[in-house]
Amino acid sequence: MKLTHIDAQGNARMVDIGDKEIMARQAIAAGGIRVSRECFDAVSSGNVSKGDVLGAARVAGIMAAKRTSELIPLCHSLRLTGCQVDLMLDEAALEIIAMCTVRCDGKTGVEMEALCGVSVALLTVYDMCKALDKRMVIGNIRLVEKTGGKSGRFRLKDTP
Amino acid sequence: MKLTHIDAQGNARMVDIGDKEIMARQAIAAGGIRVSRECFDAVSSGNVSKGDVLGAARVAGIMAAKRTSELIPLCHSLRLTGCQVDLMLDEAALEIIAMCTVRCDGKTGVEMEALCGVSVALLTVYDMCKALDKRMVIGNIRLVEKTGGKSGRFRLKDTP
Amino acid sequence: MKLTHIDAQGNARMVDIGDKEIMARQAIAAGGIRVSRECFDAVSSGNVSKGDVLGAARVAGIMAAKRTSELIPLCHSLRLTGCQVDLMLDEAALEIIAMCTVRCDGKTGVEMEALCGVSVALLTVYDMCKALDKRMVIGNIRLVEKTGGKSGRFRLKDTP
Amino acid sequence: MKLTHIDAQGNARMVDIGDKEIMARQAIAAGGIRVSRECFDAVSSGNVSKGDVLGAARVAGIMAAKRTSELIPLCHSLRLTGCQVDLMLDEAALEIIAMCTVRCDGKTGVEMEALCGVSVALLTVYDMCKALDKRMVIGNIRLVEKTGGKSGRFRLKDTP
Amino acid sequence: MKLTHIDAQGNARMVDIGDKEIMARQAIAAGGIRVSRECFDAVSSGNVSKGDVLGAARVAGIMAAKRTSELIPLCHSLRLTGCQVDLMLDEAALEIIAMCTVRCDGKTGVEMEALCGVSVALLTVYDMCKALDKRMVIGNIRLVEKTGGKSGRFRLKDTP
Amino acid sequence: MKLTHIDAQGNARMVDIGDKEIMARQAIAAGGIRVSRECFDAVSSGNVSKGDVLGAARVAGIMAAKRTSELIPLCHSLRLTGCQVDLMLDEAALEIIAMCTVRCDGKTGVEMEALCGVSVALLTVYDMCKALDKRMVIGNIRLVEKTGGKSGRFRLKDTP
Repeated sequence: MKLTHIDAQGNARMVDIGDKEIMARQAIAAGGIRVSRECFDAVSSGNVSKGDVLGAARVAGIMAAKRTSELIPLCHSLRLTGCQVDLMLDEAALEIIAMCTVRCDGKTGVEMEALCGVSVALLTVYDMCKALDKRMVIGNIRLVEKTGGKSGRFRLKDTP
Repeated sequence: MKLTHIDAQGNARMVDIGDKEIMARQAIAAGGIRVSRECFDAVSSGNVSKGDVLGAARVAGIMAAKRTSELIPLCHSLRLTGCQVDLMLDEAALEIIAMCTVRCDGKTGVEMEALCGVSVALLTVYDMCKALDKRMVIGNIRLVEKTGGKSGRFRLKDTP
Repeated sequence: MKLTHIDAQGNARMVDIGDKEIMARQAIAAGGIRVSRECFDAVSSGNVSKGDVLGAARVAGIMAAKRTSELIPLCHSLRLTGCQVDLMLDEAALEIIAMCTVRCDGKTGVEMEALCGVSVALLTVYDMCKALDKRMVIGNIRLVEKTGGKSGRFRLKDTP
Repeated sequence: MKLTHIDAQGNARMVDIGDKEIMARQAIAAGGIRVSRECFDAVSSGNVSKGDVLGAARVAGIMAAKRTSELIPLCHSLRLTGCQVDLMLDEAALEIIAMCTVRCDGKTGVEMEALCGVSVALLTVYDMCKALDKRMVIGNIRLVEKTGGKSGRFRLKDTP
Repeated sequence: MKLTHIDAQGNARMVDIGDKEIMARQAIAAGGIRVSRECFDAVSSGNVSKGDVLGAARVAGIMAAKRTSELIPLCHSLRLTGCQVDLMLDEAALEIIAMCTVRCDGKTGVEMEALCGVSVALLTVYDMCKALDKRMVIGNIRLVEKTGGKSGRFRLKDTP
Repeated sequence: MKLTHIDAQGNARMVDIGDKEIMARQAIAAGGIRVSRECFDAVSSGNVSKGDVLGAARVAGIMAAKRTSELIPLCHSLRLTGCQVDLMLDEAALEIIAMCTVRCDGKTGVEMEALCGVSVALLTVYDMCKALDKRMVIGNIRLVEKTGGKSGRFRLKDTP
């Protein structure tokens, strides 16, 4: 099995997608940040404060999704047709969950865009909370669903 | 307890650090990506291939650390004096670990830079391996150590 | 009436344009900067100096139009097919006028690109003249004309 | 009187500030966007919606202030020590006002950063409201106050 | 004969390509950096070191090719479908050669992207070797081949 | 002799400059582009046209010098205190020469910034002239002079 980004001599290259078909594609990624009780309460209490911590994270996630190809060396630059970042508070787990849905009409998938959106949204939460809690952990960043490519629909829950 | 990035009206703002002291600061962050056996072997086998997957991730992580303030809305832009991204292969766990060490002479810490470096290095590994494995999970991204701020040395293992 | 960038829960999102039609679109925006007599004369006198103040503003405006989606959080990234920034000197009003025309084949309009081009062109004039005049005012930034969208042609002068 | 950004041959150059003193500097800029009644009401009604339109504009303004030197050709890149964007609703005038305060320890002033922050915050409001109103006008963008430079304090209201 | 980027009044503008045809296009550019014997040996000796100097240059070249339109004022932003940077060691000439191949489906050619990729790859080699040698010279940066435009195939060796 | 950007294991890293002294530093780089007679005449004839080709190149070179650390993976981000790009027409050689002078107060030199400024200025000339001439060659990009570092003054003409 070959890594697609490595050429015959083992050098990094941007995979040629010229012959691939333009299709409507969508990817959904998710992840979370586990925080202290004190931090969780500060984020979730008070409408306005909460609005802005999560609001800044949402905006940062969307902006990062658009700039994915600048950050990830071998990613193609794509014109996204839609992007949404949802943030959810899971009080039982003291976790803030980010989910990013990205759509595109293009020749390659948008999973990296969705994963970048999630990562930067969570890093933004971290940044805004780090004065309260230095032991936060970001994790479980993964592709949840992907549709529109030639390999058909992928869902994380499907049996491999 | 107050979130430092929220002003009196609950609006996001960049915290004023004008009165803080310029000090030598360092932060170390780490995280990992869990991959399939097939993918792990493809990354680790063959000197050249491995060199480039991990090499591209290292370069991407360093470049992202430098651009942290463009990605994270309320981060100050800092001039890093040093940055290193180390990638380690943990075969038992089928995990590729990224560790990022950032140094700066400045008025605020560099934990966000180190966390960004880790995140983008791992996303780069994801991107280069995603044709092999769609079930990779990025996680355990956290601050490991921080020195140089007025709050003294922080180490993750210290009792809170 | 609903704001299109706000989802059902009131959160910012990038509007989905996947189902819109690819069309040739054009937008023209304009604005001006009012300056002191002394400053106006310094800009307009001497071919070379004038060439460069206005020349730098033109280049900056075009470059900013191309990067609109990096600046405006919910803007789609588009591939512009043409961009022009015109600068005019209105001596009676002591005003330097910028007009930006942007063209694109895409699924959404380019008014934000034209408005960004105008704004950054005028900010560049401000920057180059600010040693002479601290009381300059940038204003009247507006969409002048827009063609190619499903809503037909818009012209500022048309009766609403 | 000479334009400082033009060298002896009339060519654009970045002014040399090597011999200037590092000082704490601050600049405040302001501007506004005039909108229709319908649009004004949509922005101001409903806590959540309002939170996000203005919240996105605030975040976009802060992020743009940090990137000023990328947009304005001859601006020096500075490390801001603080940045705040305030948005106010003026119902009588049907205007949304943006004010941006920027602080820096550096060798040159931060008025361009404050003006960029205001401009991009207002452009973001425009973008989020443009489906409701194509006749919005952005204007009155100006420096309100500047302190910390060798020329002493500047306030717009002072008699010239 | 007219320069295409200059409008009737001699002002810079981004050429309108709206009416051009979308075609598969490719451009290949090349260039080299001449270094000292000591520097050449340091780069070429040892698999790992060499891997990383050249590896970093390759990644930097690819990333720069994608961002060409941000650097070159009047370049259109294009979505590349493929990009590859090859680095070769010419021991007889003590020269490191970079060759960049860029592909795109678009309305205009990708020669600037290929030239940017070559330039930044060579600048990266310079940066990584400059402690060893301050007399390196970068040169011979040129378009080698271009296919897909309406003017047919161009090859540097063809008689003009 | 060791490459400074390679750590003990041969991996790329950003060199730590924390212990270096803050000094006033300057670097001058130069390079040229050789063009056809027809192209040379188009650039040099006519005040306005010439003004804008060279003017755009100057602005692009300055803007690129400021963004060097985004392009070159292991470059430190520096705050330049001054930057100038000069373009000269050498009719005998049919060459357009770019020279870039960069100044900084910092812990490391600015040669990469000067070299980036030269490279992008010349690429901009290439872009604006490529409809006229596909056989232009960019070359002789080198460091001309460097002052302010601990290694003393470097001049290209000094005997090594």
